[in-house]
Amino acid sequence: MIYLDNAATTKPCRAAIDAMCSAAEEFGNPSSLHGMGLRAEKLITAARDTLAKMLGGDRKNIYFTSGGTEANNLAVFGTAHRLAKQGRRVITSEIEHPSVIEAVHRLGEEGFDTVFADVDGNGRVDTEKLAASLTPDTIFVSVMHTNNETGVVQPIEEIAAAVHEKCPKAIFHTDCVQSFGKMPVNINRLGADMLTISAHKIHGFKGCGALYMKNPRITPVLYGGEQQSEIRPGTENVGGILAFAAAAAECGCDTEEFRRKRGLMKRRLSERLDFIRFNGSDEHNSGSVLNVSFLGIKAEILLHAIERHGIYVSTGSACSSHKPQPSHVLTAMGLDGAAVGGAVRISFAASTTDEEIIFAAEKIADEAETIKRYM
Amino acid sequence: MIYLDNAATTKPCRAAIDAMCSAAEEFGNPSSLHGMGLRAEKLITAARDTLAKMLGGDRKNIYFTSGGTEANNLAVFGTAHRLAKQGRRVITSEIEHPSVIEAVHRLGEEGFDTVFADVDGNGRVDTEKLAASLTPDTIFVSVMHTNNETGVVQPIEEIAAAVHEKCPKAIFHTDCVQSFGKMPVNINRLGADMLTISAHKIHGFKGCGALYMKNPRITPVLYGGEQQSEIRPGTENVGGILAFAAAAAECGCDTEEFRRKRGLMKRRLSERLDFIRFNGSDEHNSGSVLNVSFLGIKAEILLHAIERHGIYVSTGSACSSHKPQPSHVLTAMGLDGAAVGGAVRISFAASTTDEEIIFAAEKIADEAETIKRYM
Repeated sequence: MIYLDNAATTKPCRAAIDAMCSAAEEFGNPSSLHGMGLRAEKLITAARDTLAKMLGGDRKNIYFTSGGTEANNLAVFGTAHRLAKQGRRVITSEIEHPSVIEAVHRLGEEGFDTVFADVDGNGRVDTEKLAASLTPDTIFVSVMHTNNETGVVQPIEEIAAAVHEKCPKAIFHTDCVQSFGKMPVNINRLGADMLTISAHKIHGFKGCGALYMKNPRITPVLYGGEQQSEIRPGTENVGGILAFAAAAAECGCDTEEFRRKRGLMKRRLSERLDFIRFNGSDEHNSGSVLNVSFLGIKAEILLHAIERHGIYVSTGSACSSHKPQPSHVLTAMGLDGAAVGGAVRISFAASTTDEEIIFAAEKIADEAETIKRYM
Repeated sequence: MIYLDNAATTKPCRAAIDAMCSAAEEFGNPSSLHGMGLRAEKLITAARDTLAKMLGGDRKNIYFTSGGTEANNLAVFGTAHRLAKQGRRVITSEIEHPSVIEAVHRLGEEGFDTVFADVDGNGRVDTEKLAASLTPDTIFVSVMHTNNETGVVQPIEEIAAAVHEKCPKAIFHTDCVQSFGKMPVNINRLGADMLTISAHKIHGFKGCGALYMKNPRITPVLYGGEQQSEIRPGTENVGGILAFAAAAAECGCDTEEFRRKRGLMKRRLSERLDFIRFNGSDEHNSGSVLNVSFLGIKAEILLHAIERHGIYVSTGSACSSHKPQPSHVLTAMGLDGAAVGGAVRISFAASTTDEEIIFAAEKIADEAETIKRYM
C-alpha cells in the first residue's frame, strides 16, 4: 500500500499507540481528587507542555477539543458571541475548511456582517484586499495557515499585522490543522491570537484537537462541568491527548523535506503527461500536498484506477468528498470546470519514501493515459 | 488496587483496547472515497449496529459525539433552538449532570422559561409535580435515567408518558450515561425521544459518546463538513467509536448483580458503623452506586485515608470535585450540611469482586472509626 492521502488523515504512529494504551492502564478521571485522578491530570499537563512548547506558547492556553472542527467552531462562535457588543464584522477567506466557513455562515444567519476574502490564481489570500475590509466594526478574522486542498501557505504574518494595526481589539485566528507538525508553527511569529491544531493529521488518533488561545476571552460552545476552566467542559480525552503530544513530539516539521517529496512527484508526473496542470503556488507551499488536475479526466475514475495498485489519493477534501459540488477552493482560485473536475490531491507523510513516490507517479501516469484514451 | 470510583470513569477493557489498536491499522478517514475510507465507514456502521441494537433502535439514529457532555448539550441546545418558535418552556430536574443543568441555565439566559423539578428525600424526581409544570408552551424535558451520585433510578417511563400526553409536540430526553451497560436501556420502553450514552463509563475510552435521536430534528451545535448528516460534523473518532461498541457488547447489564454488590457493601458498613446514613432509594437503585454519609467526618479526609490502602472512592461527581460547593444532588434531597459534607460515593464495576468489597468495607470502617475518634 502506498498511502498518499495524508491530508485526509494519517496512520497513528507507534508512540501515539503506546500513549493511548498507557492511558488504558493509567485510566483515572483527571478531575478525581484521589491519586489516580491526579496522575491522569499530571499526564495531561505534560502533554500540554509538549504542545505548548512546539507552538512557542504557554500550556495554560491550550484547550483540548474533539478535533479541528470543534476547535475552529469554538474560535469562531466563542469570539463572535463574546465580542458581539464590540462589533459585528467577521472576516474569513473563501478557501477555509468547512468548519470555519459554515460556522461563519451561521454567524451571518445570526445577523453578523460576514466577509469572505478571495484568493488569487495561486490560491493565496490577497492581504491588501483583506486589509481593505478591516473596519472598526471588525471583531474576528480567521485565515488558515496551510490550505488542505493545495498545500498553499497563506501570508499569515502580514494578515495578522494588518488586523492588529487596523483593528487592535479584533481577534485573529488561524487554522493550523494542515501545517502543525509539518512546518514550524509559532503563535508569536505568526502573530495570531488563536490557532487550531488536530491530532489525526500528524499521526495521532482521530477525536482530539486543540484551540490555543493567547488570551482566553470567549463564550463557551459547550456547558457542563468545571474541566478546562469551564471554557471546554467534559471529561478530557486523556488517551487522545497523550497520543497527540506523543505524535507531535516525533514530528520533524521538516518543510524542506516535504517540499522535496512534492517536487519529485511533480517532476515525475510532468515528464510523463502533457494534459495536466498543477494547482496552487509552488513558492508558498508546505510541500505536504500536491494538487494536480488531469484535464479531460474525471478525478474519481483515476482515483479508483490507481487504487487497484494499492495507491491511495483523494479528489479533494475528505470531509466534503460525498458532496456533488466542485471544490470551493479550486473554484475560488478561478479554475475552470475541467481543471476542477480532474483535480487530484496527493498528500505526503514524513515517512513517504522516494521509491513510493516514483512508483506511484508511474502508475498514476499509466492509468491517466489509459483513461484519457477512452474519454 | 481496589477501584470503586466507576461512576467517575472505568478501566478500558481488553476488547476496547484491541478495537482502538485495530483503528490504528485500519486508519482511513471514513469520508474518503477510496477503499480505506469505505472500510473505516463500514466499521463505524457495525459499531452503530451494536449500540443501536442494545438500545432497541435503529443505527441511523445514533450521532456520535465527544462524550456525554457534548451529547447532553446537543440534546438541550439542539432541541430548544430548533423548537424555539413552538414554545419557550424547558424542564429538567435539580439532580441532573452539570452538562444538562448548565446548558439549561444558559437557555434561561437566552430568554427561555426554565423549570428545575425537585426530588424527594429518596432522590427521585416527583412525577406529579413535574407533570404539573408541563404547559402547552413546553418544548423540551430532560430527566436522567440513573443519578451519578446516588445510583437512584428515576421514573423515566412515567415522566415520558406524562410529557407525551400533556405536550405531544415536546421532546423528552434522558441522560443514560450512568445506566447504559449496567441495566437494560431501551429507547422505546423508556418512552424517550432522545438519550445520551458515554463510552468511558462502560470500559470504553474517554472522548466518545453518542446522542440517540428517534427523530433527528435539531439545530446543530457544531458546523462544518458533511459527516453524520451535518448534524454533528467533524471526522469521526473511529477508534473511540469502535472501542465504545466493543465495550458495550461485553456489558452484561446485570442489574441484580450490581444490586447484590451494593447490598454487600452496605451490609458490611452497617455492621461496623453507627454514625453513617445511606443516601437515595434502595428500591429504585441501579446498584452501581452506594452513596453513604459518614456523619461528623469530612469525606475528603476519609477518601485520602483509605487511598493509602489502595482503595479509590470519590466524594461526589468527579466533574465538580474541585468545586468548594456542596453536592447539588444531596442538597436537593434535603440532606443537612453534616450528611452532605461526609458523603462518599462508592461505585462498582461488573468485575468488582466480593473479596474487594469485603476488604474495602473493613478498611473504610477502620479509617472512619479512627478519624471519628480524632474529630
